[in-house]
Amino acid sequence: MGRKIIIVGGVAGGATAAARLRRLSEEDQIIMIERGEYISFANCGLPYYIGEVITDREALLVQTVEGMSNKFNLDIRNLSEAIEVNREKKTIKIKNLNTGEVYEESYDKLILSPGAKPIVPPFEGIAEAEHLFTLRTVPDTDQIKRWVDEQHPKEAVVIGGGFIGLEMAENLNHRGIKVTIVELGNQVMSPVDYEMAALINQELKANDVDLIFEDGVKAFQDKGKTIQLQSGRKLNSDLTIMSIGVQPDSELAQNANLSLGSRGGILVNEQLQTEDESIYAIGDAIEVKDYIQQTPAMIPLAWPANRQGRLVADHINGRSISYEGTLGTSVAQVFDLTVAATGNNEKLLKSLNKNYEAIHVHPASNASYYPGGSPVSLKLLFDSDTGAILGAQGVGYKGVEKRIDVIATAIKGKLNVRDLADLELAYAPPYSSAKDPVNMAGYVAANVLDSEMNIIHYHHVSDIVDKGELLIDVREPRERDGGMIDGSINIPLGELRARLNELPDDRHIYVHCQVGLRGYLASTILKNNGYQTSNLSGGYKTYQAATQKS
Amino acid sequence: MGRKIIIVGGVAGGATAAARLRRLSEEDQIIMIERGEYISFANCGLPYYIGEVITDREALLVQTVEGMSNKFNLDIRNLSEAIEVNREKKTIKIKNLNTGEVYEESYDKLILSPGAKPIVPPFEGIAEAEHLFTLRTVPDTDQIKRWVDEQHPKEAVVIGGGFIGLEMAENLNHRGIKVTIVELGNQVMSPVDYEMAALINQELKANDVDLIFEDGVKAFQDKGKTIQLQSGRKLNSDLTIMSIGVQPDSELAQNANLSLGSRGGILVNEQLQTEDESIYAIGDAIEVKDYIQQTPAMIPLAWPANRQGRLVADHINGRSISYEGTLGTSVAQVFDLTVAATGNNEKLLKSLNKNYEAIHVHPASNASYYPGGSPVSLKLLFDSDTGAILGAQGVGYKGVEKRIDVIATAIKGKLNVRDLADLELAYAPPYSSAKDPVNMAGYVAANVLDSEMNIIHYHHVSDIVDKGELLIDVREPRERDGGMIDGSINIPLGELRARLNELPDDRHIYVHCQVGLRGYLASTILKNNGYQTSNLSGGYKTYQAATQKS
Repeated sequence: MGRKIIIVGGVAGGATAAARLRRLSEEDQIIMIERGEYISFANCGLPYYIGEVITDREALLVQTVEGMSNKFNLDIRNLSEAIEVNREKKTIKIKNLNTGEVYEESYDKLILSPGAKPIVPPFEGIAEAEHLFTLRTVPDTDQIKRWVDEQHPKEAVVIGGGFIGLEMAENLNHRGIKVTIVELGNQVMSPVDYEMAALINQELKANDVDLIFEDGVKAFQDKGKTIQLQSGRKLNSDLTIMSIGVQPDSELAQNANLSLGSRGGILVNEQLQTEDESIYAIGDAIEVKDYIQQTPAMIPLAWPANRQGRLVADHINGRSISYEGTLGTSVAQVFDLTVAATGNNEKLLKSLNKNYEAIHVHPASNASYYPGGSPVSLKLLFDSDTGAILGAQGVGYKGVEKRIDVIATAIKGKLNVRDLADLELAYAPPYSSAKDPVNMAGYVAANVLDSEMNIIHYHHVSDIVDKGELLIDVREPRERDGGMIDGSINIPLGELRARLNELPDDRHIYVHCQVGLRGYLASTILKNNGYQTSNLSGGYKTYQAATQKS
Repeated sequence: MGRKIIIVGGVAGGATAAARLRRLSEEDQIIMIERGEYISFANCGLPYYIGEVITDREALLVQTVEGMSNKFNLDIRNLSEAIEVNREKKTIKIKNLNTGEVYEESYDKLILSPGAKPIVPPFEGIAEAEHLFTLRTVPDTDQIKRWVDEQHPKEAVVIGGGFIGLEMAENLNHRGIKVTIVELGNQVMSPVDYEMAALINQELKANDVDLIFEDGVKAFQDKGKTIQLQSGRKLNSDLTIMSIGVQPDSELAQNANLSLGSRGGILVNEQLQTEDESIYAIGDAIEVKDYIQQTPAMIPLAWPANRQGRLVADHINGRSISYEGTLGTSVAQVFDLTVAATGNNEKLLKSLNKNYEAIHVHPASNASYYPGGSPVSLKLLFDSDTGAILGAQGVGYKGVEKRIDVIATAIKGKLNVRDLADLELAYAPPYSSAKDPVNMAGYVAANVLDSEMNIIHYHHVSDIVDKGELLIDVREPRERDGGMIDGSINIPLGELRARLNELPDDRHIYVHCQVGLRGYLASTILKNNGYQTSNLSGGYKTYQAATQKS
């Protein structure tokens, strides 16, 4: 006969686990408990419903309780809260939120998929703030949308510049609201590094979104209509979104004496079992391992949750599984811009004291002679000894997430940066160049790895200029009219060979161009003529983005 | 001192080799011989200039003779034809096509990059045909465009439905010309299989392009204004494009007694050397190995040519290289549709008697609740024993080449179909689903590999129906109004569990749905209830496309 399996949480990983469990067995009794009214809703779509990009509210409800119950023969209990687990008796207490009734169910296997909840610090005046919202559920969405529809807010403040913060900023902007983002750090979108995030700032400003960095909320005043920042600055707000981050909703697990990690995530083994082998945990509530470093990480994303849900169902049905960690591949749309990332960023690698190198390229999304192309700014991080790919980040208007997906796949295939140059990717003028941006990133990284090219980074430039080192800008003179590095000397690439005699042969020569390619060509000419040389990675474009005033 | 290197052919691979040679050495003397006027032009862009998608002719000239000479310190000789190689003396005879002068140059290393030329069979009346064109060079392009601009042709016939044929059909259509494609085979776009190509037919017809399959040219009559086909059918033509394929331009190599393969490609080793180790050959003119099967292949594409050009330069400069074969990743735009492929197709695997399986899926390009998504039809081919990925094909309106690039990368990473399910790809509603189409294809293939699901293919259906086997359509009744398989019985998925008693338990039960997903769910229900069952791969959608009348 079948087992009795209870799933706590009916969204993402929980719903996936339920469907997979049924596909593997017609006999098991599968009970899915969900605190909210809705199961398996489109949590990643919620901001777009508020922005009226998604116009049909029904579309958010991917599976209904009735539909999913029928399709998979499940016992789904929504508006039901799991309030206590008795591990010895293998029972769970469930509260019916409609009636207040509390009852007990036994289980053979228990799957915890409670998700993560928005962090809301106890700011002064927060209890009185009337139009302060967080976004997690369909009812949260309804509340925010109703406020926009009925109150016609003119100014909104979004606190926190992560995924939800930026998506909300864009969608409130779509509704004609002036948005200000307040971010405690020095950049938006923390999965990417500072100089890559800087490329997003321009897009936000171009769309009339104000950005305040390195400042945070001190107090809500006047029922939240005034937000006082730590700097003393005051902002008016007709609508405030609190999106500074999420924390695992792991209270039930904690009360059942299941161990949590340092950031509150439920600890699981590679089979996604908690320390109680009858209890699995998945999704945003668990601590995972970073796929590359195998260090503890919290990565609240949809893909891992769904993947884990499936794997847990497989394991319960006797299959051998092993969850090897989360790579954290992610993407966000910021107005017309796409920002995507996979693997480790430089901030993490630096904090772990890893031996890494980074390169930046800005190749075109498709053949330069075909209309509609635009630069794909890529940052590639790799092990300086082995060339193993550690992570990648992309920002641009077209074809960005494609390149990140390719690199994420390369990481899973244990390819190194040299192999990226050897990837045979689909080319026709509307889609790419004969050398794809991923090939280009691979070539540049391999050049650095093989010491065929030395590079410096944007943050080295001020030091080099301050010390009076020789920095040659190999762009054309007219390009310098659009901006240049103070202290640089202009020798266009085409003139370099003829003007080598102008260069001292006892000094290191730093070169740069617009995106790094001509700088590379210049550095090979210099090197092959006996000079010591370094090229600025990502060229003036990366430098300019990273050093602009916000 | 430097070496003297002569490159024959200044487009694609030849130009790449020249640039790389110079980056690796300032001392070598590098001479590039090009028969045409232009070097390094945008050969993949030529149809789009005729179609006025690319409006600036200068844009086609990626590098000029003067610009490239200066940038890379090259001796570039255009309008110069290499007419004879003397391998013993290591010299080459060159004819200046302006003056008729013939002179000799010695070389240390010779790189042959002559490309491939359009195949033009000696059809009856072809010599008199006045508006019959092939497309290889910029002057070819100018000729065709001038004919369109000045003669205002109303009807065009494109002979051959490959890449160039379809791109020309689309671009002539853009110019307001009624186009008919005549194709000797039973499908367009031979890199993909029949049922995938069938999805393209609909797009061509919707754009008023006529398709004639399994017919070819017999004769050109009335100076080419009438084209008589082998079937007896006659077509009017104001403009005819001959695009039935290309053949290696390998005469120079052949006359130098360098061995050619059975299809005329120059034979090279893994270091891209001909049997004369001082002579390299690259690009469309060489026979390569199929990357997956390591069998001989002719794959005239830009990526391999460029990659080979770089590798040859590396090898000449003492680096160790190995060209492991060509995967043949390709993509084409056909009006709003994208068609892409990588690796082996089923036709090849069948002809090689390989032990393979194929699956078809049609998942959405992005989250179903977010606007703008559309199906990505994917075919995945894999080794039935090991699950190794052998090839993939995609057709759809959005995000197609992205999925093929990911699978091409997975092949290079030696991932198998199970690993495709485990790829962590970038997800946000505008870009993908939490389960990416590649994940979906991986899950389906793994189900087949693990015998968790048996499948049949579209070409098995008529046999099953003819034999009176039980074929259950698990779609909703209203979906059958849009088309159904004659002889199928309708039991919607939601009713299946309750109606199991209607099914005989001593017969194999074939199921199908629209795209294969509900059929899979139905097959798991049946299987877990003790039935023998098979699901139609790709569902009614693949069946319908493959069996439509053209």
